[in-house]
Amino acid sequence: LTTPTIGVFDSGFGGLTVLRELLPLVQGAHYIYLGDTARLPYGAKSQATVARYAVESARFLEDRGCTSLVIACNTASALALDEIRAAVQVPVTGVIEPAVQMAHHGREGSEVLVLATQATVQSHAYLLACARRNLQAIEKACPLLVPLVEEGWVDHPVTREVLRIYIAEALLACKPSAVLLGCTHYPLIAAPIAETLREFGIQAPLIDSAHATAQEVGRRLSTEAHAAGAHPATFECFATDSVEKFQRLGSHFLGQPIPRVELLDLGG
Amino acid sequence: LTTPTIGVFDSGFGGLTVLRELLPLVQGAHYIYLGDTARLPYGAKSQATVARYAVESARFLEDRGCTSLVIACNTASALALDEIRAAVQVPVTGVIEPAVQMAHHGREGSEVLVLATQATVQSHAYLLACARRNLQAIEKACPLLVPLVEEGWVDHPVTREVLRIYIAEALLACKPSAVLLGCTHYPLIAAPIAETLREFGIQAPLIDSAHATAQEVGRRLSTEAHAAGAHPATFECFATDSVEKFQRLGSHFLGQPIPRVELLDLGG
Repeated sequence: LTTPTIGVFDSGFGGLTVLRELLPLVQGAHYIYLGDTARLPYGAKSQATVARYAVESARFLEDRGCTSLVIACNTASALALDEIRAAVQVPVTGVIEPAVQMAHHGREGSEVLVLATQATVQSHAYLLACARRNLQAIEKACPLLVPLVEEGWVDHPVTREVLRIYIAEALLACKPSAVLLGCTHYPLIAAPIAETLREFGIQAPLIDSAHATAQEVGRRLSTEAHAAGAHPATFECFATDSVEKFQRLGSHFLGQPIPRVELLDLGG
Repeated sequence: LTTPTIGVFDSGFGGLTVLRELLPLVQGAHYIYLGDTARLPYGAKSQATVARYAVESARFLEDRGCTSLVIACNTASALALDEIRAAVQVPVTGVIEPAVQMAHHGREGSEVLVLATQATVQSHAYLLACARRNLQAIEKACPLLVPLVEEGWVDHPVTREVLRIYIAEALLACKPSAVLLGCTHYPLIAAPIAETLREFGIQAPLIDSAHATAQEVGRRLSTEAHAAGAHPATFECFATDSVEKFQRLGSHFLGQPIPRVELLDLGG
């Protein structure tokens, strides 16, 4: 029995929140994380460009020996999952299906609010995935939230004001029974998002796509991994831009130090 | 006498504000604009990555027949001007020297405040260029301003609040005699920047690097171009991501419709 090697891909650091949840969940696994930091963010780019970038990254992870891939990036999952699946031989899990599945639980027929990047919203990937489960998704693009998180303003009056504006606009169109965090940066501002919703009288739970995806992958792999040995999971990291910055910023998302990052040139 | 063909390069749309000023200034010229929109923004990326991207773009413009290049991007000018000059045979103008030259006029020995991206500030390109002219630069990174402009919040309470925070922090360190807009997105929020400075008792003029650079290039080329013929300047545009988005957003920066944009694959 071989140790499962799981590739985790994101445009930047956000996908490290998925890896963070996976590490204690799948004993004995080895993870290869790739952050395409030279070309981030994907959230405002076209389908063709996001698909090209994501396929290059997925191929790299398969070539490194990954036996399955997690696309821990909402934009790439929304815009390029079919292209990625066509480009590699190994199973590929995106973040959208697990998140919608978790939202669906006990909420059939109700409205869910999806907060996401511009590109994810324009793809309507959440809308379609929700419709297949008889959920009505209202998708709201929140382009300033990633820059605010990256500025470190996670508990800041400006972030709360921006959230009030976005959420007030979204609530004109729905009364959600759940709110889906459709970007791996958003869990870092889950508390102000929940507070802002309460200000508007919405008590709906937040569903974190990173958490939902980690749970799904964990369920699928934990038996296989346990059989491979009960030693703790290991990981290595690749980035397409500054490895120093990846180590520094990435450790906040991962919740532990990142001892080493390898620089990767994907030709862009 | 041949018509001058001037390449104008930016990571995205901001450099179109330089082209906008150049069009009426240099009669008879032809402009080739390249926006590296698939890999924007450059403002938070490493020197090595920005230099690689900028050199690829500069080579493309030289190959298309440009007789001189304008690097209409503060980050690329700050981080990669030497690499670009080494990579091409034609003269290259960046935005930093013209801006500092304009700031210097009548202000020797005084303090100037430079608002710019993270990468531009970390390069200290403005600090060094100012020091060479006996000006003391205080550089302030303003990472949220580009996303706010791109969200279209150019006249918005959140933008004014973010400006108050950044400018208050900067004014702890200086009392500027001029304020340099070290990013081609910032002229679109020149009015709220000036208002915020006045709230803090600062009457210093704003110096726009796009305007300063267009003036400098115009001075150098107008004789040559006039001799080539008194017909209006023409332009063509290339982008590395969605041409539809470039046409739509770019026309706001250019101040006129963009009839056609060609998609360019720089291999990234």
